[in-house]
Amino acid sequence: MSLFEQLCTQARQSALLESIESLLGWDERTYMPTAAGEYRAEQMTFVSGEVHRRRTDPRLGEWLHELSSSPLAADPHSDEGATIRQLRRDYEKRCKLPQLLVEELTRASVLGQQAWVKARAADDYASFAPHITKLYDLKRQQAECLGYPEHPYDALLDDYEPDARTSEVAAVLSALRDELTPLVQAIIESGRRAPVEILSRHCPQSAQETFGKRAASAIGFDFERGRLDITHHPFCAGMGPHDCRITTRYDETFFPSALFGTLHEAGHGIYDQGLRTDWFGLPPGTYLSLGIHESQSRMWENLVGRSRAFWEHFFPQFAADFPEAALGASFDDFYWAINHVEPSLIRVEADEATYNLHIIVRFELEQALLTGDLKSADLPTAWNEKYRQYLGIAPPSDADGCLQDIHWSAALIGYFPTYSLGNLYAAQFFEAAERELGGLADQFSHGEFAPLKSWLQRNIHEVGQCYTAAQLVERVTGQPLSHAPLVRHLRGKLAPLYGLK
Amino acid sequence: MSLFEQLCTQARQSALLESIESLLGWDERTYMPTAAGEYRAEQMTFVSGEVHRRRTDPRLGEWLHELSSSPLAADPHSDEGATIRQLRRDYEKRCKLPQLLVEELTRASVLGQQAWVKARAADDYASFAPHITKLYDLKRQQAECLGYPEHPYDALLDDYEPDARTSEVAAVLSALRDELTPLVQAIIESGRRAPVEILSRHCPQSAQETFGKRAASAIGFDFERGRLDITHHPFCAGMGPHDCRITTRYDETFFPSALFGTLHEAGHGIYDQGLRTDWFGLPPGTYLSLGIHESQSRMWENLVGRSRAFWEHFFPQFAADFPEAALGASFDDFYWAINHVEPSLIRVEADEATYNLHIIVRFELEQALLTGDLKSADLPTAWNEKYRQYLGIAPPSDADGCLQDIHWSAALIGYFPTYSLGNLYAAQFFEAAERELGGLADQFSHGEFAPLKSWLQRNIHEVGQCYTAAQLVERVTGQPLSHAPLVRHLRGKLAPLYGLK
Repeated sequence: MSLFEQLCTQARQSALLESIESLLGWDERTYMPTAAGEYRAEQMTFVSGEVHRRRTDPRLGEWLHELSSSPLAADPHSDEGATIRQLRRDYEKRCKLPQLLVEELTRASVLGQQAWVKARAADDYASFAPHITKLYDLKRQQAECLGYPEHPYDALLDDYEPDARTSEVAAVLSALRDELTPLVQAIIESGRRAPVEILSRHCPQSAQETFGKRAASAIGFDFERGRLDITHHPFCAGMGPHDCRITTRYDETFFPSALFGTLHEAGHGIYDQGLRTDWFGLPPGTYLSLGIHESQSRMWENLVGRSRAFWEHFFPQFAADFPEAALGASFDDFYWAINHVEPSLIRVEADEATYNLHIIVRFELEQALLTGDLKSADLPTAWNEKYRQYLGIAPPSDADGCLQDIHWSAALIGYFPTYSLGNLYAAQFFEAAERELGGLADQFSHGEFAPLKSWLQRNIHEVGQCYTAAQLVERVTGQPLSHAPLVRHLRGKLAPLYGLK
Repeated sequence: MSLFEQLCTQARQSALLESIESLLGWDERTYMPTAAGEYRAEQMTFVSGEVHRRRTDPRLGEWLHELSSSPLAADPHSDEGATIRQLRRDYEKRCKLPQLLVEELTRASVLGQQAWVKARAADDYASFAPHITKLYDLKRQQAECLGYPEHPYDALLDDYEPDARTSEVAAVLSALRDELTPLVQAIIESGRRAPVEILSRHCPQSAQETFGKRAASAIGFDFERGRLDITHHPFCAGMGPHDCRITTRYDETFFPSALFGTLHEAGHGIYDQGLRTDWFGLPPGTYLSLGIHESQSRMWENLVGRSRAFWEHFFPQFAADFPEAALGASFDDFYWAINHVEPSLIRVEADEATYNLHIIVRFELEQALLTGDLKSADLPTAWNEKYRQYLGIAPPSDADGCLQDIHWSAALIGYFPTYSLGNLYAAQFFEAAERELGGLADQFSHGEFAPLKSWLQRNIHEVGQCYTAAQLVERVTGQPLSHAPLVRHLRGKLAPLYGLK
């Protein structure tokens, strides 16, 4: 076996262990009996430790050192070059982390998630606060071990959006905010309000499930290689080259929650299923960044799933499946309702225009919690204050406030800004796809989603980690990342609905 | 840490990996997407190899050698003594098996099960025959590696019923057969036939599921520490000290399949949940043998679940939940129908009296396949011939013939006789429980199952592997294993139903 093959075999073995960890996590959130939580934490801690041991094996370091100066590494964008570069990047980062810290983080996140489920159900932030303290303390240790150019948050952000800087993300988000604030203000001042009561009409869960699965299939999620289950907080997890599982949650008096949640997770799943399986577990067959991942989910959820053309195809079926919800509702009413803009409390149910304000709240709070400027006990107050400041509203309970997201409980700190990056990438990619393919809306209105899916697979999924996110955006769209395409998309959709100039 | 603690830590780690393997297997049979099978085989092969590596670690051998002559090993029935004895037994057996063979067996069994599901659905034995050849070939190699006192089958049997011999099992089964043959013959000659058409009346799946869960809870299966799901072939699997999962299958026109299947698997689950959790993963907290395991499932399925007293409690609820099935059926009709004796094709649906004949067919065939006296291509013919010989009937298709059981496809060869041993143990334990507790029937008729469950937990579950099965039977019942209690039970129940002397 050549040294490169040896490297790949070792990395594939680590990926296999990670795929098992993913199944343990999926099962924990879907079907695991309630009393099994403590031992599940032990199982996940053990596997996570084994992965860390393999990914920091000194022999791996020697192989990578040797291969880095070999001809295989010459082209950093070739499959082999990217494999060597990315595995070395990962190796060097991990070597800075003590195994004990890694295991403590895994355990704290499993216990944190279990505590979060209970705290949210009981609207009891106090029972969850010690977990926040513990988790941020461990993440602060992680940032110090890793080092960072400017801000400890940089070190955490890098886990989710490699090579991104806190200051740069803050700049992009404020540029976006400067455009969105007047747009949202103008919508409020228009005095127009979509007939949103349509959305809270009764839709039986089983019919929602059928409709959601049909829509997910239509856009390209392959149920032979995946599943859809139910969890409190929807997610997508891969546990093998042909095993990608998504989840959603059903609300019988607010169908958009499950439907757009399903399209969103299916978008993630389509990315996962579009990766090259022959490179499974290696950088060329691995997603590039969470921002890029999110661009795929946001594209199918919003740019496709909330488009007029999508519903020209699906509305007749919707009306047939949910006669109570569709009763007397015109196509225009329905289309407006699912695109209504109004400041609200729950991030995952926020409209496209206000969504990024939810992200900015979290982005700022997690930086403050990390530096210690904000104490965990003061989180609910700080949260409510920021919601008043940016969205003009405050949650009546912590369950609908700072307990609404699973992320922090799962030690996912530095993750939130990737949602906004995803929105920006999505709009920019979508403009490029339209330029190249043409007539996307016409295709959607006939239920044809394969051309867009194939374009995404070819241009984004199959690239894996052979380019950085910034390079990929330039290659695919011919431009560096910009907030302009997203703003154009929103203005284009919302101006006619709200009679704006 | 003392040497003994070191030993326990290492063994618990192996058990943790086995618990993960168990989850991978459970998921494969319940929720895994169809296309994920090949990678799942890789995942299971990897974990199984890791377990084997740990359980054959030479340091483990050294520790066991040293501890075997320590005071801790002096009492072989103490928790410490049993731990040392049983781990040493396992170590020495495993050291005889090459890692390559262990991995090949895991892979062959995963692929075998996948092929079996398809072959059974399509009634296509030919597609499954190569797997039988491969599996028996590997098991023959296993027997040769392990060595055996008389017959290669001894080596395989020992995996499921430690210390049992093929010749001894054959002797017990023929003693039983010599009693059962005239009993079954007399029943046929009585000319009486239970009103079994009751059993094929329509019972909606969801109502069956509710009823089955309620019954499983009533006898003591804890759903906080377990689950009930659906699979082709019902099973029970533990994946942690508080995580025991059972499965069943539903037939809307034959409710006994799911109901008695659920009680059976719940019986296994109650044993699993009754083990001492502080010794989880170590011999004192591990089940003793498959025969003893089966005694628990058979007791709840047959000695409890098909008793008159059980149904005095449950029949009113049954009649309320399944009005169509209960229409015009008296309690006596119903009780007779679920206890009707008649030679039939499917083992898991066979009555208590003919059941062991199904086992004898398999017990003989697997010995012949193992020695090579029978070729895999000839299995369907040999199967059908034995059914004609012992049960007087032959299956119309292989799906209802030699493809009906999952066991061989999963490399479980030498496993079947433990079902009959379970029947024998169950009847003998039940007589002892009645002697000690008294009034069991009266308790059942009031829905009280806790006294029997506690007695089983105290006398059997919590013993773990501190005694051998033979020693346990003597300790609990005061007698060596005998076929007499089972025969007494069957005669006592069946003679009045069929008007026998």
